[in-house]
Amino acid sequence: MGERLSGSSPDRHLDPAFPLHHGGKIEVRPTVRIRDEDGLSLAYTPGVGRVAQAIADDPELVHEYTWKSNTVLVLTDGTAVLGLGDIGPAASLPVMEGKALLFKEFANVDAVPIALSCTDPDEVVETAIRIAPGFGGINLEDISAPRCFEIEARLQEALDIPVFHDDQHGTAIVVTAALMNAAQVTERTLADLRVVVSGAGAAGVAVTDMLLDAGVGDIAVADSKGLIHPDRTDLTQVKRGLAERTNRAGISGSIAEAMRGADVFIGVSAGTAQEEWIASMAPESIVFALANPTPEVHPDIASKYARVVATGRSDFPNQINNVLAFPGIFRGALDSGATTITPRMKVAAAEAIAGSVGEDLALDFIVPSPFNPRVAVEVADRVAAAARFDRVTRLP
Amino acid sequence: MGERLSGSSPDRHLDPAFPLHHGGKIEVRPTVRIRDEDGLSLAYTPGVGRVAQAIADDPELVHEYTWKSNTVLVLTDGTAVLGLGDIGPAASLPVMEGKALLFKEFANVDAVPIALSCTDPDEVVETAIRIAPGFGGINLEDISAPRCFEIEARLQEALDIPVFHDDQHGTAIVVTAALMNAAQVTERTLADLRVVVSGAGAAGVAVTDMLLDAGVGDIAVADSKGLIHPDRTDLTQVKRGLAERTNRAGISGSIAEAMRGADVFIGVSAGTAQEEWIASMAPESIVFALANPTPEVHPDIASKYARVVATGRSDFPNQINNVLAFPGIFRGALDSGATTITPRMKVAAAEAIAGSVGEDLALDFIVPSPFNPRVAVEVADRVAAAARFDRVTRLP
Repeated sequence: MGERLSGSSPDRHLDPAFPLHHGGKIEVRPTVRIRDEDGLSLAYTPGVGRVAQAIADDPELVHEYTWKSNTVLVLTDGTAVLGLGDIGPAASLPVMEGKALLFKEFANVDAVPIALSCTDPDEVVETAIRIAPGFGGINLEDISAPRCFEIEARLQEALDIPVFHDDQHGTAIVVTAALMNAAQVTERTLADLRVVVSGAGAAGVAVTDMLLDAGVGDIAVADSKGLIHPDRTDLTQVKRGLAERTNRAGISGSIAEAMRGADVFIGVSAGTAQEEWIASMAPESIVFALANPTPEVHPDIASKYARVVATGRSDFPNQINNVLAFPGIFRGALDSGATTITPRMKVAAAEAIAGSVGEDLALDFIVPSPFNPRVAVEVADRVAAAARFDRVTRLP
Repeated sequence: MGERLSGSSPDRHLDPAFPLHHGGKIEVRPTVRIRDEDGLSLAYTPGVGRVAQAIADDPELVHEYTWKSNTVLVLTDGTAVLGLGDIGPAASLPVMEGKALLFKEFANVDAVPIALSCTDPDEVVETAIRIAPGFGGINLEDISAPRCFEIEARLQEALDIPVFHDDQHGTAIVVTAALMNAAQVTERTLADLRVVVSGAGAAGVAVTDMLLDAGVGDIAVADSKGLIHPDRTDLTQVKRGLAERTNRAGISGSIAEAMRGADVFIGVSAGTAQEEWIASMAPESIVFALANPTPEVHPDIASKYARVVATGRSDFPNQINNVLAFPGIFRGALDSGATTITPRMKVAAAEAIAGSVGEDLALDFIVPSPFNPRVAVEVADRVAAAARFDRVTRLP
């Protein structure tokens, strides 16, 4: 992906991704068959009018007699698409369709991709609220930081359906699951670990917050300017918040300072991690180099020093992939009628993912295969139970 | 539909429309199967990133590598749902899903229902523009008049995809097709006919304009206050326009005045047509009583005086149903890459529908069955040809 493919390049015709994407990857299909006039008069006028009137009389019936309760809006403004950056709404569509495909394939959730031509946070929030009535949840996708934090918070405040920015929480949940298992397989607890997170964007902030919630001992976070520290004067509001919650050791300067003796490195940036940094970590170290498609450090290099190595890539062991989380999370949220996604629901999802590895747990198998059909089911069950425990469900 | 069904009424459990609507009527399905890691790495990261980058480099590729070129936004604000009125977005959803079902069933068009929580025309237009990038066309639905005229015009002005308010043009096209055949079966031409249209909302205005374009001799239009006439001081801008184009005979007062000696009555209102009005029409008269579910005049009464009688109902002969038009129109528009729907494309659609009746043409068979699979194909072919003739296609 380093080399750009020009639109007119013949490479398109050699790359199997292109024929697979021809005409898109999803469709809208009827779930009922209309074979004759009688069927037409039930599914359409006049029958449909009786159903519409019943919902007008009792709004709760929208959950029973429309697709709302099984349908998620996959919403992007195209500002942070994969590692490609702000490539705009049209170019983001294949990614959103891919998301919709995975929602259906892994959790039977109907997902509708909408790519916005606006990027102002006020306009994104306003538009999402206006189009929300037909959806049972909103999966925000590929929206750049720090805009994504405000957009998610304002939408969740305004709506009574769960709003979930997958680049934040999906990543955080799978990283937490992987770290739970990495700690277990190296016979430590999360509280034993000193973690360095490289990247303070959507994923970096959410991973840090979730790991702190899960009981990780200390976390130092670095952005492109160095370690996040209260003395820095260039911090955004979100990063100032991070500075208060993290880096209890008070290390400042380059990320290399924090890497010395650290137990865990988590890369969620487009940057690189130098070999000497990895070499300077504590024994039995854990390295998650999640930048896609080029990990911060090549797993073969990282493995020279670290006990557990994970990436975002399918061609190395321990692939940390959001698809382990988001289908089951929305399945569980929709099934329980959740109106939001609570911290407990996210931890429940991480525990379900970690637990799905079962007896196969090993240094090179800390997360389940995305094709393990039990994962989404376990995640959904645990998430729904957590929603009921937290009493955030629409119905008792 | 005269009696409202209460939400808690047991009638829901006796009406077969309700179980048919349980869980909604449509779903989003993958069109490609992802069976293993290799498939995942093509349909999702990293493969999807190469497709996204290619579209960023050459925006035209969005038509080739996403679902956009086969996908229509079905957009409503819930202000004029069937004959039920302003019942809001949630209650409109079953109707929008029904539309999406018919789009797929009759023309393999993927249609996405979006029900808006805003009704201000500025906000509806703005929202549609913001969510448009992923769609190849917009079908406006159940938006009240006169707001619908402005919303459609402003959207078509702003976007390079076809925008089509079905309650206007779908109805106009099928009425025109039916009147072409009613004239033929009674051995007259459209120019021979003096028409009375009852209703000056979305359908009434569009039917009148299209019949004038098609060469109908004279048309008098009535709203709830009486005949539209330049001397009236209570006319909206749209109705003032109608007053200039119609009623060449200059009849004023009640609709009954215009009915005397008229050849055709077209009812597209929620009103009624009294038996004596029908009785006062010219010999060999044609009555289209299209109010749903209760026609302006019962077809058994109308048949006492009229030679041809049509309704919107499936349980009487000559059902005038928009489903004959909208699937094929969008199929043809999408196939030709049309950027708008021109008058020629609408006339082509009407001619295709009228022509589909073929040798079966009879007083009680002036429109084809919606289940005639040739209709959408013929409409699509003729509409695409007209788009190319008018040079409104995206590509040469």
